[in-house]
Amino acid sequence: VQQGLDAGWEPETIVSSAEGLARPHIADLVVRASATGARVLEVPQRLLGQIARKDNPGAVLAAFRQRQLTFETLPRPDNGIWVGLYEVRDPGNLGTILRTADCAGIAGVILIGTCCDPYSLESVRASMGSIFDMPFVSADFEAFDTWRQGNALTLVAASVNGTARHDAEIYGKRCCLLMGNEQSGLPGEVEAACDTLCLIPMRGGADSLNLAQASAVMIYEAWRQQGFSGARDLPT
Amino acid sequence: VQQGLDAGWEPETIVSSAEGLARPHIADLVVRASATGARVLEVPQRLLGQIARKDNPGAVLAAFRQRQLTFETLPRPDNGIWVGLYEVRDPGNLGTILRTADCAGIAGVILIGTCCDPYSLESVRASMGSIFDMPFVSADFEAFDTWRQGNALTLVAASVNGTARHDAEIYGKRCCLLMGNEQSGLPGEVEAACDTLCLIPMRGGADSLNLAQASAVMIYEAWRQQGFSGARDLPT
Repeated sequence: VQQGLDAGWEPETIVSSAEGLARPHIADLVVRASATGARVLEVPQRLLGQIARKDNPGAVLAAFRQRQLTFETLPRPDNGIWVGLYEVRDPGNLGTILRTADCAGIAGVILIGTCCDPYSLESVRASMGSIFDMPFVSADFEAFDTWRQGNALTLVAASVNGTARHDAEIYGKRCCLLMGNEQSGLPGEVEAACDTLCLIPMRGGADSLNLAQASAVMIYEAWRQQGFSGARDLPT
Repeated sequence: VQQGLDAGWEPETIVSSAEGLARPHIADLVVRASATGARVLEVPQRLLGQIARKDNPGAVLAAFRQRQLTFETLPRPDNGIWVGLYEVRDPGNLGTILRTADCAGIAGVILIGTCCDPYSLESVRASMGSIFDMPFVSADFEAFDTWRQGNALTLVAASVNGTARHDAEIYGKRCCLLMGNEQSGLPGEVEAACDTLCLIPMRGGADSLNLAQASAVMIYEAWRQQGFSGARDLPT
């Protein structure tokens, strides 16, 4: 809730209990949300668990108005790494990738084609608050590809058809990493539009990485090649 | 089911439907399981979904006898990277890490202290079959540390107290990566026993990576420094 308020998201409703409101930090969040027009509800503590569908809910819950960014309203840093997710279908994967992208200072995430809902319960929960901080846009592949070419982003996809190692110098200064669908990866025409198809190494005999795991490996390798620029407390 | 049989696990029961048994590949699995003493059950297709607790179950299910390896019965490759998980609590994380470890040719996984059950539904499902191929052992920290010293494994932990970057040359030829609990990380005395504490870079302001995501980043970096030895179809 604090992360959402800090990032300027608009709360519609904020819910707490008498026990929660007795804590100054929680009361402060409720005051802040109320000041921006949110409806305030005080409910018995056990109802918080039912609303959150969790055994141990936090002391405060809020419903925020969803945001739908477009390529026009997306923040555009001069440099940076972007992530494209092609038809991601598992909301747990999506939320986890938003969280990792946030940790690695990714510029933004593009949800390409028919993806699962980033605002679903599982996605929001897995994002652990990064849903508020990591900009994302939904687009079809054509609109995405036009945008990325207009921004001179190299397009590097992880693929079983990859011919370069994912740790080769393939990213350049401005790039978009592209990850395929959990079951079927990327269609041929999408792979044909990429600058590089790269392979994440696998032990002989092993099957494949989970999509979020593969995304973490790609994201951290691309950022490593940029010297982890923007990282806090970076040891030498 | 095929992966379990191929890896020599002992099936207690194998379940399929008339539709499943009409497929030669499924019928072959049932014959193989039956030959090793498994009970064979034919049930209506809709029961498969209820047993598997999935909307779209496979055409065959099996229950395998659990294995409990010890340090004495663990395969011991001369080289390799091991993974220690200290009090991992989320079975989805555990299964996902077993899968990633399998993909990266990790020698084995040590479950240290009070961990969640690797044979829980969520863990087995998230492992996507790697539960059969990735050796794992449960131990307390003292037994683990004695074992790893006896095997001359460098102990490298990911920690918010890390003083080396996780991509520095800190692993050596034989090492064990150590990952802490989802909530509390590693206790001070465990960190004191490590050769190196390393930091996975984070953007300023971001919170933390999911445990399985952090594990993937560590595992792939350590393996990268070994030239991805053992990988199949490795591009140059």
